[in-house]
Amino acid sequence: MEPKPVSASRSIMTDIIFPSDTNYHGTLFGGVVMKYVDKIATIASMRHSRKGVVTASSDSLDFLAPVKVGEALLLEAFVSWTHRSSMEVYVKVESENLSTGERKTTATSFLTFVALDEDGKPTPVPPVFPETPEERALFDTAEERYEARKKRKAHRNG
Amino acid sequence: MEPKPVSASRSIMTDIIFPSDTNYHGTLFGGVVMKYVDKIATIASMRHSRKGVVTASSDSLDFLAPVKVGEALLLEAFVSWTHRSSMEVYVKVESENLSTGERKTTATSFLTFVALDEDGKPTPVPPVFPETPEERALFDTAEERYEARKKRKAHRNG
Amino acid sequence: MEPKPVSASRSIMTDIIFPSDTNYHGTLFGGVVMKYVDKIATIASMRHSRKGVVTASSDSLDFLAPVKVGEALLLEAFVSWTHRSSMEVYVKVESENLSTGERKTTATSFLTFVALDEDGKPTPVPPVFPETPEERALFDTAEERYEARKKRKAHRNG
Amino acid sequence: MEPKPVSASRSIMTDIIFPSDTNYHGTLFGGVVMKYVDKIATIASMRHSRKGVVTASSDSLDFLAPVKVGEALLLEAFVSWTHRSSMEVYVKVESENLSTGERKTTATSFLTFVALDEDGKPTPVPPVFPETPEERALFDTAEERYEARKKRKAHRNG
Amino acid sequence: MEPKPVSASRSIMTDIIFPSDTNYHGTLFGGVVMKYVDKIATIASMRHSRKGVVTASSDSLDFLAPVKVGEALLLEAFVSWTHRSSMEVYVKVESENLSTGERKTTATSFLTFVALDEDGKPTPVPPVFPETPEERALFDTAEERYEARKKRKAHRNG
Amino acid sequence: MEPKPVSASRSIMTDIIFPSDTNYHGTLFGGVVMKYVDKIATIASMRHSRKGVVTASSDSLDFLAPVKVGEALLLEAFVSWTHRSSMEVYVKVESENLSTGERKTTATSFLTFVALDEDGKPTPVPPVFPETPEERALFDTAEERYEARKKRKAHRNG
Repeated sequence: MEPKPVSASRSIMTDIIFPSDTNYHGTLFGGVVMKYVDKIATIASMRHSRKGVVTASSDSLDFLAPVKVGEALLLEAFVSWTHRSSMEVYVKVESENLSTGERKTTATSFLTFVALDEDGKPTPVPPVFPETPEERALFDTAEERYEARKKRKAHRNG
Repeated sequence: MEPKPVSASRSIMTDIIFPSDTNYHGTLFGGVVMKYVDKIATIASMRHSRKGVVTASSDSLDFLAPVKVGEALLLEAFVSWTHRSSMEVYVKVESENLSTGERKTTATSFLTFVALDEDGKPTPVPPVFPETPEERALFDTAEERYEARKKRKAHRNG
Repeated sequence: MEPKPVSASRSIMTDIIFPSDTNYHGTLFGGVVMKYVDKIATIASMRHSRKGVVTASSDSLDFLAPVKVGEALLLEAFVSWTHRSSMEVYVKVESENLSTGERKTTATSFLTFVALDEDGKPTPVPPVFPETPEERALFDTAEERYEARKKRKAHRNG
Repeated sequence: MEPKPVSASRSIMTDIIFPSDTNYHGTLFGGVVMKYVDKIATIASMRHSRKGVVTASSDSLDFLAPVKVGEALLLEAFVSWTHRSSMEVYVKVESENLSTGERKTTATSFLTFVALDEDGKPTPVPPVFPETPEERALFDTAEERYEARKKRKAHRNG
Repeated sequence: MEPKPVSASRSIMTDIIFPSDTNYHGTLFGGVVMKYVDKIATIASMRHSRKGVVTASSDSLDFLAPVKVGEALLLEAFVSWTHRSSMEVYVKVESENLSTGERKTTATSFLTFVALDEDGKPTPVPPVFPETPEERALFDTAEERYEARKKRKAHRNG
Repeated sequence: MEPKPVSASRSIMTDIIFPSDTNYHGTLFGGVVMKYVDKIATIASMRHSRKGVVTASSDSLDFLAPVKVGEALLLEAFVSWTHRSSMEVYVKVESENLSTGERKTTATSFLTFVALDEDGKPTPVPPVFPETPEERALFDTAEERYEARKKRKAHRNG
């Protein structure tokens, strides 16, 4: 399959936090962030593979700063690495104070997705190639993360 | 106040359509599109004004093509014109078939927002200046739309 | 087809505003109003046509007064005019302060819907006839609005 | 306090069932019906009392017929009887097949609400008087239902 | 069919109240409680019957104490009695102040469910037998509640 | 502070999957699972600490099997280890086929929470002690996970 650049899967979501998104502190609920992260990463992995996909795993997620009602939430996702039918997607979550423009990193994470054919079986995806320094750094460290995930999974099942 | 380019308010939202977004035909419900349109336009108008805002009006909206479950919905919004404390925001809604990459225009619309100070009173916003041909075309026809809205409102109240 | 009176499609929705319906000001979010408007207008157009329908357009919508948590939202919709397979629906949105009974107009709008047969193709709808002065006034001005929409659409596509 | 007619609290809600309202059978989920019932009854009791209210009890509810996606749900509620600070509200739920106009009763129920003053204490409400035969029949049997509720509550606590 | 103990259907749900669950008083909305009650009782009745089920009725529900944002809501449900294809499910709802551990009973209720075969027709369910004193007390009084429901239904239809 | 057993924080949530919880494959959306995981883990950490808490991190999450509409989702969470003001919470997610009783592990994960005092500052929590072999195994390996998280965080920021 023809390799595709990282930029072909880059996907952006911007939303504004309303009271219905908040926890009992009045700040954005972590579970809502996780839901957004899974949605934008799903879109990125479908743009790369042009196939149906399922979430296989979500790497660890550190919540670095709370997000308040009235602030914007910005998510950016792209396919950072592939391996046969599986794709690693990098997601960056930021908050923006809409009165000042100040941005803070809320969380970053990696998810993995598997592409499926019409019978629901794993199916190969095109390789991805990085173009920017950030993309290259993520690409070059991806195999290491892949091995760590394999080890983690073996450990759980064993 | 310092004029700001249209690009300073450009805001993008990408989402994927799930069964909970659909009407009884199994396609994206028009009311959900309108909700997204209002959200992304709110963000664009706050990025331009860096103030609290309220929706003053939504211009007409033509639904050009249905959107299906599993397709992506893409919204792009920016402030196209300003007048004292009021901002006109242009919103373009497209759908993307994630299996083929094919895009269709779902709807386009203009909304107006009023910037508010801390007491909830209208407060001036910076002027906006267009940089691209598309932005210029929208800017140049904005005053005409503004007059049409004023006339429409007078007609309703009269 | 047998003409039907406007009253045959008159549809009413009353809801009470809870925190989950609010924006970051703690007032009813414009996008939620638009969602309600589309729902009640869908019902009115199905009651007139007794067919499946899709939203074709929403005319401009002016938001005249904010609605607070604990207030009721009242929507009334009816088919004001028809043309072959298309129906114009008038929607009036009011808020009611439930402690005093005071009502305010929140917004009014016209939407258009197309009736569909079982294959999803446009299908004729019965003519509508007005009975009250308000219904007559809306009926008599409908053709003008129809022409304005046609012109608007041609302009966008051209 | 000045007595008020039943008609002063009559409240109507019409909605159309979408996939997000359904259970795993693809029909309207009973819990969603109960949520609508509580909302419209809250509005009716506030219209009668013009006070804040809390739900005190919901009488039994029989689900008589399933409701399908694309059908309308019609709710009608009014205060049928009062006693000091408490109001009995009658709610009737019907479904309407929007393609044929056929209506079926989905459920009927009585709820009781207590009116609260600004400190959250129970506060008297105006008496209600029936005007139609249906209203009178409900009014005349209300005291019996009131006694049954009192007995039921005593039994639970005892 | 082999009788099953009450404990085989015991089902537990714990949730934390967020602003999106509240009414205009900022406390948990009664309609949301009713929705939870129907969900957990559905699960209990499916665990007993291992069939599809529909809600047939909900007995009266007394709301004994308001629940606040940040408190936990605890629901426990089990099949308390059966009769041919129908099951009575007992549901207890408590709130827990998560800062102190203090629990309060919010409401208790009985619902009835009918088990359905693959054609949507009522189908027999196994008998249930009580093991604890609480289960026995509910089992022994179930027939009386069953007769009261039958009488109530006859009365409505008559 | 008095140590508390793991069992004091054990929290259980059972829900049934409806169409509104599904993705475009008609199976449970990964982001919804993550939202449930965060909710039940929040409850467990508040039960242990009896304080307000915020999510600090979510460890990796492997999705082992899809969950279908009509199946139950079972979550169990407890505090597995503590360190000053921080708590590690273990969450196990299973699905149950309600027609057969068959259960499958959907995912397992660890989250960390920080307890906050009334000014929103981190505040110490009681130590936890394991009682069962499963609890002990998790407790004994917790420090290793803690060090891995610290290293991961340093690496991101460095």
